Order: sequence, then C-alpha cells, then structure tokens
Amino acid sequence: MRLFIVPFAPNVLRVQILAAEKGIALEVADISLDHTGYHAINPLGQVPALELDDGRILTESLTICQYLDETSGAPFLFGGDTDERLQIAMWERRGETRLFNPGVEYGHHTHPMFAGRTKQFPDFAATLVPKAEKALSVFADQLERTPYVVGDRLTVADITSFMGYVWFVVYGGLRPSERASIRHWSGRMIARESMTVLRDLATYFNMPPLD
Amino acid sequence: MRLFIVPFAPNVLRVQILAAEKGIALEVADISLDHTGYHAINPLGQVPALELDDGRILTESLTICQYLDETSGAPFLFGGDTDERLQIAMWERRGETRLFNPGVEYGHHTHPMFAGRTKQFPDFAATLVPKAEKALSVFADQLERTPYVVGDRLTVADITSFMGYVWFVVYGGLRPSERASIRHWSGRMIARESMTVLRDLATYFNMPPLD
Repeated sequence: MRLFIVPFAPNVLRVQILAAEKGIALEVADISLDHTGYHAINPLGQVPALELDDGRILTESLTICQYLDETSGAPFLFGGDTDERLQIAMWERRGETRLFNPGVEYGHHTHPMFAGRTKQFPDFAATLVPKAEKALSVFADQLERTPYVVGDRLTVADITSFMGYVWFVVYGGLRPSERASIRHWSGRMIARESMTVLRDLATYFNMPPLD
Repeated sequence: MRLFIVPFAPNVLRVQILAAEKGIALEVADISLDHTGYHAINPLGQVPALELDDGRILTESLTICQYLDETSGAPFLFGGDTDERLQIAMWERRGETRLFNPGVEYGHHTHPMFAGRTKQFPDFAATLVPKAEKALSVFADQLERTPYVVGDRLTVADITSFMGYVWFVVYGGLRPSERASIRHWSGRMIARESMTVLRDLATYFNMPPLD
C-alpha cells in the first residue's frame, strides 16, 4: 500500500495518525516533489490517495481511514456493533463539520502561509469562530461524561475532533480551552505516540499548551 | 420515530428523500413552529434530529440516513460488502464536500433569502464555483462509465451529489451541465418519486430544466 501525500496537509495527517494508532506502516509518495501523473490517480487533484496492493485507488481521507481500520486488527476505531458505529459516526461528523473543516478553513483565510496561494477572506474566517466555540462547549459537556468523545476508548471521533481543535489553536482562532474536561482530554491526546508529527507542528507554530 | 425538522432545510430534505427511497414513514416535528426544548435534543441547535422509539436521539443527517438504511430492508443505499460500502462512502464524500456543502454555502452567501439572517460574503461564494465545476466534471466522467455514481443502482452517493448540483443550479452558481452523462443522470434523478419536494422547490426557484 502506498499513500500519496503532501507533508503536513491536515487530511494526510489524519490518515497517518490513524495508521499509527493501528500500527500500520504506509509507504508514502510525496507529490509535492513530483506530481507527474497524479491527476490519473485522483482526478480531483487532492491528497491523500491510497494505492492498494492490487492497484486500486481509494481517495477521501475518512474513507481511507475506514479502509485501514476495517482491514486491520482490533481495536476498531470506527466501532464494533451498530450502536457504537453510529455514535462514533455522529460524533466524528460533529468534529469534522464544526471543528476540523472550519479549523483548516480558518487557517487558509487568515495565515500568511496561504497568502497568494488562495484568496483570503479573513472577515469570513472570523464568522467560523463563534460556531467552533459553541461546538467545543458541546464537546466539553460530553467529555465530562466520558473520558473519550465516545465512551472509554479512543475512536476516530477523537482523532478528527482533536485535530480540528489543534488547527483552530495553531492558527489563533481559538485559545486553549479553560474547561477541565477539554484540557484533560487534549493533554492525553497530544501525548499519544501517534501524535508525534502534530507535536512537532505545535512547536513549529509556537502553539500554547493545550493541557 | 420522530424527525425534528425545519421544512426545506437541505440536510432535512436529504433524510426525507432517503426515507422516501426506502419506504420509511417518519413522523415530523417542525421546530420552526415551536423550538422550545430543542436545545436538549440537539445541543448544537441544528436540524434534523431523529428521536428513536426508545427515546434516544441521533443527529447529523448522514448518520441518520445510515441508521434508517441499516435498520430497514434492502436495497441498502450505503452498500453491501466492504468494497461497495467503501466506494459509496468515497463518492458520497466527494459529492458532499465538493457539491452539497459548497452548494448550500453558495446560497447562504448570495441569495437575498438569507440576507440579514447570516453575514454574506458573495466574493467568497464566487470562489466555490470553479471548484464545483471541476468536481461536476469528475462526476460527468464517472457517469459516462456507469449509470449511477457507483454502479448500476441508486445509492446515497447519488442523493447527496444530486442535491448539491441542484442547490448550485437553484442559486445560480452553476448552469445546468451540457455534459450528456450529467443530463441523463439528473433527468432520471429529478423524476424519482422521492424527489417530489425537490421538484416543487425547483419550480418555486424557477430552476432551469436539468435534463
């Protein structure tokens, strides 16, 4: 299996973090060095894409995560029985649509790193912040009831939601939460072996401590 | 089962269309008439939410669709075996992130109907159009190979992608495609029994014909 990447792209990191949690080693092809022929691999042009051993291609980071989860051993980060799978899917989507996607978008519209590469609308980005604050408060309430977003073990809902929170803090859209449940959770999340790259990024961006 | 709705909200319609495809009758509670206590049902405040017969609440439209699909009979619109499920998940996400979500967002930022209810950034909305055109072209290529987005039968990937295409056309961000594969597909989609409400909306918005 080979993962086509651009280093540090959020959706690439999401796959790499899940793979690390599952103990899956992925050969990588860095298309920022050479993207010749990448259009034939993903006509939408975006990373990541996963080339399976039989040559088939899978795109969309969450679908790649689901593939890696289902085709490797336990623990299954997308859940076991129907009820657990649906709870994880629901919270993963909350994390994705309210924290991860808007966190990445906030950075695109505000950080000098993206100036010139994309048309930036910082006033639009500012409208994403109160929605994220509201979502983070809902996650804080949930994390007072349960140590991880869904129950007592890490799932893909934690990975997505935590990464979204990190992007917002990295880019300055959110300050680290003062809610104890968020600080306990994020402290344990950032310390995980799978989060090495995210810790490096946090240092690079001079991110304030989350725990 | 009771579905909490605001009439015509895109994510509500998505659930109602999938339910119609599966022959599932859903009691509805219209929170635009009375939203007392809705915060306790969905702390994020958004529709739809599904109240199960045992009182449990499920939110996030795609997760509700998945629940309705899995707990009712065939055909399963999220797929059967692993390979089909992953293909459908991949194309559903392409439809959602490149057509459905930006189509809805395009309308929020450009249509007079939303002025005053949300801060509008029409110049930002304009940047969503070329990305949607590119995605629609990838869907057109796929629909030259196969009558529905994934294979020879309708799946949730068709529902999401088609609704996204409709929003863009309704709001004037895209003109109806001139690609034959898109016209054949969308002509068959809009004619489906499940699309009655969408046809009514298209008439209300004076939408040009898609087929």
